[in-house]
Amino acid sequence: MATDKFLRNAWYVCALDAEAKRELLPRTILAEPVVIFRREDGAPAVLEDRCCHRHLPLSKGRLIGDVLQCGYHGLEFDASGACVRVPGQARVPPGAQVRSYPTVERHRFVWMWPGDPAKADPDLIPDMHWNDAPGWASISAILRIECDYRLLVDNLLDLTHETYVHVGTIGHEAIVHHPIKTARDGDTVTVTRWIYDHQPAPFWRAAIQRPENCDRWQVIRYRPPANIDLDLGVAVAGTGAPEGNRSQGVNGRNLDLITPETERSCFQFWAFARNFRIDDRDLDQRLHETVVKIFNEDKVLLEAQQRSLEAAPAGFQWIDVTADAGTIQARRVLDAALARETAERGRQAAE
Amino acid sequence: MATDKFLRNAWYVCALDAEAKRELLPRTILAEPVVIFRREDGAPAVLEDRCCHRHLPLSKGRLIGDVLQCGYHGLEFDASGACVRVPGQARVPPGAQVRSYPTVERHRFVWMWPGDPAKADPDLIPDMHWNDAPGWASISAILRIECDYRLLVDNLLDLTHETYVHVGTIGHEAIVHHPIKTARDGDTVTVTRWIYDHQPAPFWRAAIQRPENCDRWQVIRYRPPANIDLDLGVAVAGTGAPEGNRSQGVNGRNLDLITPETERSCFQFWAFARNFRIDDRDLDQRLHETVVKIFNEDKVLLEAQQRSLEAAPAGFQWIDVTADAGTIQARRVLDAALARETAERGRQAAE
Amino acid sequence: MATDKFLRNAWYVCALDAEAKRELLPRTILAEPVVIFRREDGAPAVLEDRCCHRHLPLSKGRLIGDVLQCGYHGLEFDASGACVRVPGQARVPPGAQVRSYPTVERHRFVWMWPGDPAKADPDLIPDMHWNDAPGWASISAILRIECDYRLLVDNLLDLTHETYVHVGTIGHEAIVHHPIKTARDGDTVTVTRWIYDHQPAPFWRAAIQRPENCDRWQVIRYRPPANIDLDLGVAVAGTGAPEGNRSQGVNGRNLDLITPETERSCFQFWAFARNFRIDDRDLDQRLHETVVKIFNEDKVLLEAQQRSLEAAPAGFQWIDVTADAGTIQARRVLDAALARETAERGRQAAE
Repeated sequence: MATDKFLRNAWYVCALDAEAKRELLPRTILAEPVVIFRREDGAPAVLEDRCCHRHLPLSKGRLIGDVLQCGYHGLEFDASGACVRVPGQARVPPGAQVRSYPTVERHRFVWMWPGDPAKADPDLIPDMHWNDAPGWASISAILRIECDYRLLVDNLLDLTHETYVHVGTIGHEAIVHHPIKTARDGDTVTVTRWIYDHQPAPFWRAAIQRPENCDRWQVIRYRPPANIDLDLGVAVAGTGAPEGNRSQGVNGRNLDLITPETERSCFQFWAFARNFRIDDRDLDQRLHETVVKIFNEDKVLLEAQQRSLEAAPAGFQWIDVTADAGTIQARRVLDAALARETAERGRQAAE
Repeated sequence: MATDKFLRNAWYVCALDAEAKRELLPRTILAEPVVIFRREDGAPAVLEDRCCHRHLPLSKGRLIGDVLQCGYHGLEFDASGACVRVPGQARVPPGAQVRSYPTVERHRFVWMWPGDPAKADPDLIPDMHWNDAPGWASISAILRIECDYRLLVDNLLDLTHETYVHVGTIGHEAIVHHPIKTARDGDTVTVTRWIYDHQPAPFWRAAIQRPENCDRWQVIRYRPPANIDLDLGVAVAGTGAPEGNRSQGVNGRNLDLITPETERSCFQFWAFARNFRIDDRDLDQRLHETVVKIFNEDKVLLEAQQRSLEAAPAGFQWIDVTADAGTIQARRVLDAALARETAERGRQAAE
Repeated sequence: MATDKFLRNAWYVCALDAEAKRELLPRTILAEPVVIFRREDGAPAVLEDRCCHRHLPLSKGRLIGDVLQCGYHGLEFDASGACVRVPGQARVPPGAQVRSYPTVERHRFVWMWPGDPAKADPDLIPDMHWNDAPGWASISAILRIECDYRLLVDNLLDLTHETYVHVGTIGHEAIVHHPIKTARDGDTVTVTRWIYDHQPAPFWRAAIQRPENCDRWQVIRYRPPANIDLDLGVAVAGTGAPEGNRSQGVNGRNLDLITPETERSCFQFWAFARNFRIDDRDLDQRLHETVVKIFNEDKVLLEAQQRSLEAAPAGFQWIDVTADAGTIQARRVLDAALARETAERGRQAAE
């Protein structure tokens, strides 16, 4: 049994909270078509986007109360996916239903569970509380990238690329001269880098608004399938930013919740939360522009990398370097989780 | 031997009469490239659109009298497909010819026969006389749709979709409450629906120009491979529109002659003929606009349905409902005809 | 072992001299991604366009001196393809290198050798000296065509097509009435046509600027894999343009150095050199426009031919005519060279 590329028993973000509305939003998640909407009570719902009758995407139809009406022959489905009406006949035929996905709204994201619904424990949703916690301000967006989602994980776990890709913003020659420390705790991989007493890059200089040299930290945490949060910040050098006590610097949390669209494309649901100048809407705006610019610089490279990988001859290997320690650990964690899930499916098929 | 998706021993419309000219029209019919033109005597001709020499499409060349000259090296072919000249040499090499297709112009359509020419009996062309009969006015057009031609057959055989797809024009809630009657006679499938004493939909209200309630009929006839004619009309309720005697209402004939382009695209050659206000050119214009609008509403859905079907996992089934009776009968007729043709090819190959 | 479509142990033009600069030029040659640039000493270099680390095309990076820095993680490669620096670590890991290709600049073209570097003898570069010889003026350009490179070879070896494709420029009915003579000498195929005492086509009339009838010659030479030079010219009829002595006419050399991009696309690096009015820059301009127009007429047909060939049913044959003698000889030469190379690879694999 071939190992799937996607972990199915996991929570994935399928929409920002603001995207889920009383309109029908079609989206492809893990190569499956889904339609996202809000019920009248405000709760988000995710259904298979394919009528069981003649396969028209339900997103081409209409939302009437909590019922989704197909735009072709008018079959109606409730939020559980059950067909509740077939126009022109009294009885709904057996088997008339579409798949519904366990859905939870948390930390301003809509999460769905593509795997076995019995295992969809909301406690498994990773903690992303910075996105809606008191004392924090946050901006967020969705970016679609035409690459294997694992390339985006690699990108975020190895920030040496900032020096070469993000030259005008967060890039800084100092980064590559400061070694990373990689740690693994269960399925969590953490990559830590400290840069002491340096001139911060333009992005952080603008954030801290102080002329002095700074200490800078990047603590990246990965959890499978593809959830990453970056604890980022700078503080005036020597003024109190040792590990574990960063209160005197500026601190941001970049959340990157990555969801495969297909085997060769993915969504990056990102947020950038901060615990300083939280009422500054102009800063929101500038931060948004900066982060969008940075992630689009990555997008261009990731899509070029994807095409290059697809064009490579069979059996072509890549060479690892020291800075890959975190990405290699994360791939091992993911591959092990995929192998466990494949083995489990094999056992179930054998029973 | 796998069953073909296309019936080959059948007449297919390949062009509207007005499309066939003294210019070369390239078109793909049943996945074969053909070039359509008129001979000097006005008769249409259809040749394989591929020079036997170096495969340039002949439609890139020139029509000189009744001879088609290749635009690359100047080989010339007559309307029978025989190569009649090779520039720079006296003799035409053996085997130099392209395929020609039996062609008949009838009822303002150009029909071609992609199968065994010996079987191309013009009497097998279905009766579409409303399109050029005295006492009738007609409009027509061609629409290309990126879907399996059988989805368009399904669409036209089950008009419950009007209620959901054509909300602003011919759609009417009443349709789904009135059951259809399906009948099969040989290879002909007929679906009949009567709606008595109701407020007609805007399209028919404008046609009949009377304020009263109406009786409305839809009699749809299917003949393989994909020829459909719809006998449609309304009459003031109770004033004489019983089955078999519709003379006091307004009556239209929608002809839909469907030709596969490829396995996933088709042409809908349609006409709308009527036996009332036949000299009203403004009505022609309005009808044309209305029908184009309606069929484009269908096109959007059919193309979404096609993509959804292509993306569905292997083995995925669809659920049937009562209103599908006609479409299911028509598929059985077509499948049986395809199986007969496949079996016949098998016998011929064995001989 | 399947025969490759591409001869690998051969020189191919990968760029015009003017295209190779101190910027990174990405190009696909024989289905391999390469990056072309000039070193500080002015010599052109060609490297594999794929970082050995994480496969980003190196053309997305920067040229620093003679070192190519990857735009993702900053790995640096010298012009030999060796990785000379990995940011953040002291040692370059073993195996860190990209492929470099033997490269020679000659006759205003940049030539590369995609095969075994040990065999890359510059003496094997075909003589195209007219492109930079004293007494000659030349114009040149690159044209990308979406067709198998062998179709373009066919096109240039059989100029009967001029009569049908280039009607307004070099086409002339007289061409097809004058037989060609085909000769083979080793791997060189020569196709010769003489047309005596005729009204020259507009292109040549404008070149010679004389009202009299002319004698015209076309001597086409092919050498594998796909290098063609055409000795073309006209002279006033009977005034001294016998074979071997063309000094009294106007003489041009059309060089067509064809390089496969993929199996279904190629580059035509062309030049048009002449030995008359060599200081006339207006003539340069007019010639450039004319040749571009002519080759774009071919491009349209070649791309239509390619699509037609791809759509043809399996086993479909083409018919040969007398004028194909040269193209058939050239295919035999190429097929034999491909078979020799395939056999050699088989022997090496067995050792």
